[in-house]
Amino acid sequence: MRASDIIIKKRDGFELTKEEIEYMVLGYTNDLIPDYQMSAFLMAVYFKGMTDDETANLTKAMLYSGDILDLSSIDGIKVDKHSTGGVGDKTTLVVGPIVASLGIKVAKMSGRGLGHTGGTIDKLESIPGYNVNLSEEEFINQVKEICIAIIGASKSLAPADKKMYALRDVTGTVDSIPLIASSIMSKKLAAGTDVIVLDVKVGSGAFMKTIEDAKKLARLMVDVGKSLNKKVIAMLTNMNDPLGYAVGNNLEVIEAINTLNGNGPKDFTDLCINASAELILASGYANSLDEAINLAKRQIDNKEALNKLAELVKAQYGDESYIYDPNKFAKTPFIIPIISYETGYIHSIDALTIGNASMKLGAGREKLSDKVNHRVGIVLNKKTGEYVTKGETLAYIHSISKDNDEVINMVTSSFIIEASEFKQELILDVIK
Amino acid sequence: MRASDIIIKKRDGFELTKEEIEYMVLGYTNDLIPDYQMSAFLMAVYFKGMTDDETANLTKAMLYSGDILDLSSIDGIKVDKHSTGGVGDKTTLVVGPIVASLGIKVAKMSGRGLGHTGGTIDKLESIPGYNVNLSEEEFINQVKEICIAIIGASKSLAPADKKMYALRDVTGTVDSIPLIASSIMSKKLAAGTDVIVLDVKVGSGAFMKTIEDAKKLARLMVDVGKSLNKKVIAMLTNMNDPLGYAVGNNLEVIEAINTLNGNGPKDFTDLCINASAELILASGYANSLDEAINLAKRQIDNKEALNKLAELVKAQYGDESYIYDPNKFAKTPFIIPIISYETGYIHSIDALTIGNASMKLGAGREKLSDKVNHRVGIVLNKKTGEYVTKGETLAYIHSISKDNDEVINMVTSSFIIEASEFKQELILDVIK
Repeated sequence: MRASDIIIKKRDGFELTKEEIEYMVLGYTNDLIPDYQMSAFLMAVYFKGMTDDETANLTKAMLYSGDILDLSSIDGIKVDKHSTGGVGDKTTLVVGPIVASLGIKVAKMSGRGLGHTGGTIDKLESIPGYNVNLSEEEFINQVKEICIAIIGASKSLAPADKKMYALRDVTGTVDSIPLIASSIMSKKLAAGTDVIVLDVKVGSGAFMKTIEDAKKLARLMVDVGKSLNKKVIAMLTNMNDPLGYAVGNNLEVIEAINTLNGNGPKDFTDLCINASAELILASGYANSLDEAINLAKRQIDNKEALNKLAELVKAQYGDESYIYDPNKFAKTPFIIPIISYETGYIHSIDALTIGNASMKLGAGREKLSDKVNHRVGIVLNKKTGEYVTKGETLAYIHSISKDNDEVINMVTSSFIIEASEFKQELILDVIK
Repeated sequence: MRASDIIIKKRDGFELTKEEIEYMVLGYTNDLIPDYQMSAFLMAVYFKGMTDDETANLTKAMLYSGDILDLSSIDGIKVDKHSTGGVGDKTTLVVGPIVASLGIKVAKMSGRGLGHTGGTIDKLESIPGYNVNLSEEEFINQVKEICIAIIGASKSLAPADKKMYALRDVTGTVDSIPLIASSIMSKKLAAGTDVIVLDVKVGSGAFMKTIEDAKKLARLMVDVGKSLNKKVIAMLTNMNDPLGYAVGNNLEVIEAINTLNGNGPKDFTDLCINASAELILASGYANSLDEAINLAKRQIDNKEALNKLAELVKAQYGDESYIYDPNKFAKTPFIIPIISYETGYIHSIDALTIGNASMKLGAGREKLSDKVNHRVGIVLNKKTGEYVTKGETLAYIHSISKDNDEVINMVTSSFIIEASEFKQELILDVIK
């Protein structure tokens, strides 16, 4: 077998065998196939796509390129959650505590990732003392003891994905449904849980721009999970505007705490309740989705989910007093209101622009070696569908700099305000 | 400017600017852009193609990536010849002497190349003593003195092409018309001549499988030459069967000598006369193509072209007695006839199969470090269009091994013999 022949076979639109896909993935992971052949291969996949079988074989080859976490010593159903990456997405910080407070085992490894704000790990690190670097043994023991642990991803899981993703990022081969599906699923399957809920974002701020593409991606991921005896539930959710109000690291933690206190933004609360309910149902803790939804709501109302978040923070050496008094979180010296120049209904708040503005403030990172600022970000004051009058405040910028002209312009321009009323659904579909 | 943005722009089908193309080519040549980004870029070009302007800009960027040979100290028109690579193609060994014998300056640098038989340089090296490694100064002086020099290609010309071609070879990105056009023309333009005749092969044994693709390639190359004030003439010639009878290194030199003695195969002689005539006409040595054809024929009849080949060989330290007595060339111990199992008209002799058989015998190389055997090869006894009866000899294998079963099968199977008569044209079109 030769890599160049496999590249040409894919380039010419033929279906690759399991063996050919394994040859490419394992050869690349083990430095036997050079970057330049893999990048040509990935570009050929970008143009020619992959059949469902090829995508499943690719996912499995990437999964088996490294260790698979053995969670068998933990009793009961182990669950995980993944989002394809949204602006303002702090769902894990709410869903994790809700389901763990019911006794479901949440074993979550999360990436730092690149992007507009930090990843879940960066958000948790905005809580003083929180340690994301537990050993595998500590991680498993904590899940056994308090039903939840959230740590940074282990380097030994799906090394093929790490190497391939870094290459895709610089070779124009990120936006490919089979490559996205195999990247997400190889990582999630390597993390060893039984149930995975996936939040597939759709819209201007997401990888998937259309509902059709999102459905295709979701179906691929659910099916590959099934073929490995895993329950995978994919929720397709709207990402035409940021999720909730807050975009930024500690700003999002504060919003998660508010949500666990029953005071969260409606869109974000709805998403968290529904995602939790899917996990509760799939884990056998409820007989119907309605029952599961009610259970999730109850765990917010009785503060058990909030207490579980505090317990998680404490177990990972963080200062849990911040969870009960979020005013303790550090604030930026400058908090600047963004004023509306128009009167009307908000039709969209461009998530990508808000994300880029947040990045400019310092909330995200371009390179993995960049440090994120935990305090900066953007807090919306109005959401899509709401009516605003000229002069009202649309959002607040939390900045450490006096000079915010560019960011102010970006945030202002991200609001599309029209005369007509406008409504949108947050949860577009659920595929399982 | 970022390489990843340029890759994505091409991937998404937008036209690249001159500056973007230069950024990629010069960045790659100077090791600022890594192999993996160039290979993804080349694959995107494979799928999305290039406009004529992009191809011209790519060619120029590759041309200006290194030195351009300065032939201005040589009086008169300087000419060059290039073939896109055919099986049994020894045209340079005949065309060069014909036109040089008229006083036209033939300054030819030739590749060793990979392939079924060696390149022109390998063929010349089958003449004992022939030195292909002249300095630039020696090369220019020889052209001044005897009107012809044929040496190996200088490393300093079009280094971008060398680096890009090596990458294309292993990443499935060879078969792209804009990439082929820019590769050929950047090299030829860097060699500094005024007139270039290109032999674009069409058919099963060639890069261009269809006449439409060949015309497109020819038109692109002629136009980019024009834009740099060069006369480029592209002949489209049939490569559904090997050119002439002989395939192999010294076997082809012998056939070239026979042709200069007026005893060459008809198809090969016709091609040489026509290619010579195009160079003669473009150099202003004749007023019409007919006049030029007659001049070329005259130079064969009066042996001046043969004498010029001997003069070339002598000037480059080769033993010119071989030119006047080709029986001196070393022969293989085994010369095996291939017998026809059928009776009928030959409809084709698959050039690719003959080429691969010749490679198996040792005439060509897979890697640049491989050594070629100068004696081995295949000599056809019948050509496409001829009538054969069962038991007649189709070809001879010249082998250094006793065991030739595989090669015998390959050569036998390359002949397609049918009941109906068959004729084909050798020169399909001329574009200038």
